[in-house]
Amino acid sequence: MKILGISGSLRKASWNTALLHTAATLLQGHEFSIAEIGDLPLINQDLEQGGKFPAQVERFRSEVLAADAILFATPEYNASIPAPLKNAIDWASRPASTLAHKAAAICGVSPGALGTSRAQYPLRQTLGVLSVQLLGQPEVFIGGAGAKFADGKLTEAGTLEFFGKMLAIFTAFAERVKLG
Amino acid sequence: MKILGISGSLRKASWNTALLHTAATLLQGHEFSIAEIGDLPLINQDLEQGGKFPAQVERFRSEVLAADAILFATPEYNASIPAPLKNAIDWASRPASTLAHKAAAICGVSPGALGTSRAQYPLRQTLGVLSVQLLGQPEVFIGGAGAKFADGKLTEAGTLEFFGKMLAIFTAFAERVKLG
Amino acid sequence: MKILGISGSLRKASWNTALLHTAATLLQGHEFSIAEIGDLPLINQDLEQGGKFPAQVERFRSEVLAADAILFATPEYNASIPAPLKNAIDWASRPASTLAHKAAAICGVSPGALGTSRAQYPLRQTLGVLSVQLLGQPEVFIGGAGAKFADGKLTEAGTLEFFGKMLAIFTAFAERVKLG
Amino acid sequence: MKILGISGSLRKASWNTALLHTAATLLQGHEFSIAEIGDLPLINQDLEQGGKFPAQVERFRSEVLAADAILFATPEYNASIPAPLKNAIDWASRPASTLAHKAAAICGVSPGALGTSRAQYPLRQTLGVLSVQLLGQPEVFIGGAGAKFADGKLTEAGTLEFFGKMLAIFTAFAERVKLG
Repeated sequence: MKILGISGSLRKASWNTALLHTAATLLQGHEFSIAEIGDLPLINQDLEQGGKFPAQVERFRSEVLAADAILFATPEYNASIPAPLKNAIDWASRPASTLAHKAAAICGVSPGALGTSRAQYPLRQTLGVLSVQLLGQPEVFIGGAGAKFADGKLTEAGTLEFFGKMLAIFTAFAERVKLG
Repeated sequence: MKILGISGSLRKASWNTALLHTAATLLQGHEFSIAEIGDLPLINQDLEQGGKFPAQVERFRSEVLAADAILFATPEYNASIPAPLKNAIDWASRPASTLAHKAAAICGVSPGALGTSRAQYPLRQTLGVLSVQLLGQPEVFIGGAGAKFADGKLTEAGTLEFFGKMLAIFTAFAERVKLG
Repeated sequence: MKILGISGSLRKASWNTALLHTAATLLQGHEFSIAEIGDLPLINQDLEQGGKFPAQVERFRSEVLAADAILFATPEYNASIPAPLKNAIDWASRPASTLAHKAAAICGVSPGALGTSRAQYPLRQTLGVLSVQLLGQPEVFIGGAGAKFADGKLTEAGTLEFFGKMLAIFTAFAERVKLG
Repeated sequence: MKILGISGSLRKASWNTALLHTAATLLQGHEFSIAEIGDLPLINQDLEQGGKFPAQVERFRSEVLAADAILFATPEYNASIPAPLKNAIDWASRPASTLAHKAAAICGVSPGALGTSRAQYPLRQTLGVLSVQLLGQPEVFIGGAGAKFADGKLTEAGTLEFFGKMLAIFTAFAERVKLG
C-alpha cells in the first residue's frame, strides 16, 4: 500500500510530524512518505488558470492522487484544524477532488491533556463531506507529549504499542477500502 | 466605533467580500475597513523570531488590535472554515492574542441554500475559545447568492433590510462589550 | 436487506417521520420498519440491573441489532440532535453496542432553508465514534418542507427523485458494508 | 445571584452531579440549587396543549426563568451532549425561551483524559443559538475523576482551587450580564 502522511504543523520540531516519522518506522512493508504542504499558496480559486493549478499545488495533488491511503497527524490550533492542513485539504478537494473515496485515519499529539480532539472532530466533518473513508476506531489522542517523545520520535512504550496496533488496523481497513 | 471586516475568501469576485462592501455602506457613522489577509504566510511558529512576527502578520495584528469589533464574512469550504480565514485567526491569536474580548459577528453568503452554516459553527467554536464576544442572534445565512447580488453589492431588498438590522444590533452589542 | 428507520421527532405530524414513510415506498425489495423511540426512558445507567435494560430498551436494542442498516431522519433542535434521537442512540450504544459497524445514512427535513444540517453534523460526530459506517454522499438536506409534502408523504417530484437515488446509493453501500 | 445547576447525568453516583455539589459549597453568598431533570418527558411538541406544558416541564421552566445564571456540569455521551441534558434544554427553549440572554458556564468531569470536551463544544453550539451568554474562559475539563473525588465531592486540592477561581470569574461575568 502507498500511504501518504500529512502533518498539520509546519514547525520543524513538531510533535505531529515526529509522530509521522514514527509511523514510517512502524509501517514496514508499505510505501510511506510525508507530504510537503508548507509551500502551498493560500487557497484562492483565482489562481486556477485554464484548468491548471499553481505548480506546488499540482505536485501536492499528484501525491494525494497516487496514494492508496492518507494518515493525518494534526495539532489543534484554536480548537480547530490548523490553517496549513485545512489549506492542503482545500486544494486537494478542488474538482476533480483528489481525496474522494480514499481511506484515511487521523492521529494527533499535544503537550496538554486533550490530545487534539478539538481539531480531529472538525477534521472528520470536513473529510466526511469529501467522501473520504475515515477509520472510526481507535481514535488517537496522545496527550502529555513532553514525556513521550525523544529525538524526534515517539518513545513511550505503551503509546508506541497502541499506535502500532492502530496502524495495523488502519492498513487492514485501507486494504478493504481499496478493494471496494 | 472602529470595525474591521474580514472576508474568508480571496477571490476577487467573492460574494462574501461583496457582503462586506455592502456593510461599508450600511455602517454609516462608524469607521469601517476591510483587512488584507491574502498576503499572510501560512502559520508557522518558526517564523516568530525574537518576539517578532513577519511584517505582513505584524500589520494584520495591528489592524485587529486597533479595532473595536470584527465582522467576519465567510464562505464555507468543505463544511468548515476556509483556510485563509483560519490562517488569519491563527496568526491573530498568537500570544498576546489580538482578538481576546473583542466583539464580533459572523455572516455568510453562498450560492446554494445553506448560507455557509457549516463554516459558521466551527468558526464560533474557534472564536469562543479565544474569548471573542460573539453576537448570538440574528445569525446571517444568505443562500441563493446569484439572485441577490449585482455589481459587487447585495441588492435584494428583503435581505438588505435584514442585514441592515443585524448590523444595527451588532454595533449596539459591540458598544456594550466595549464599555465592559 | 433489513433496514430500520429512526425519526428524531416524536410529533405525530413530523416531516421527518413522513420522510421515513416515503422511504418505505421507495425501498421496494427490502424489509423496512420504523422504530418506536418515544417510550424509552431517559438514559440512566442506574436503570441497568444485573446486565438487563428496561423492557422498552431491550426491545429497541433488539431492533437495532437485527437491522442490516439504519436510516436516520432528523429535525434539528437548537442547532443539534433532538433529545429523543440522542436518547435512543445513547441506549443503543450501551455495551455491547448494538450500532457498531452497521451501515447508516442520515436525511433531514425542515420548514426553513437549512434542511437540518446543524443536527446532521453533530449526529455524524456521534455515530462516527460509535464505529457506524456512515454514507458520505449524497447528503440529504430538504428545506422548505411546507411546499414539498402532502398527506404525510414527500410529493415534490424533483426532491422525490433525488431521495430515491440517494436510497439506491445507500442500499448499495450497505450491501458492501454487510459483506465486509 | 440566583444560580441554577444542571447536571447532564441522572446517575446517583455521577461525578458531574458531585461537581455541582462541590460548587454549592464554593458559591457562598449566592443562592444555588440543582435542577431535577430526570422526570421530564421526552420532548414532543404534541404534549404542549393550549399553551401549557406538562407539569414537570412547567416546574423546570420556572426554575430556569427564575435563575440569574446557569451552571452546566456535563459528562459526554458518545462524543456529544447527554440525552437528558439535551432534553432539558430543548424543553427550556420552547417559546417563549426561558434561556435567552441568561449567563451560563459549562464544566465537566470524566474518568478518562478528555474531560468531556466532546460534549462541551456541541453544548456551546446549542446554547449559542439560544442567545445564552456563555463564559468563554476558563474552560473546565476535569479528567481522571477517579483520583480527584471522595464522598461525592471534588477533593483534589489543585483542581478545587482552579474550580473555585473559575466560579468567581463566572459570578462576576454573570453580574455583568445581569446588568446588561
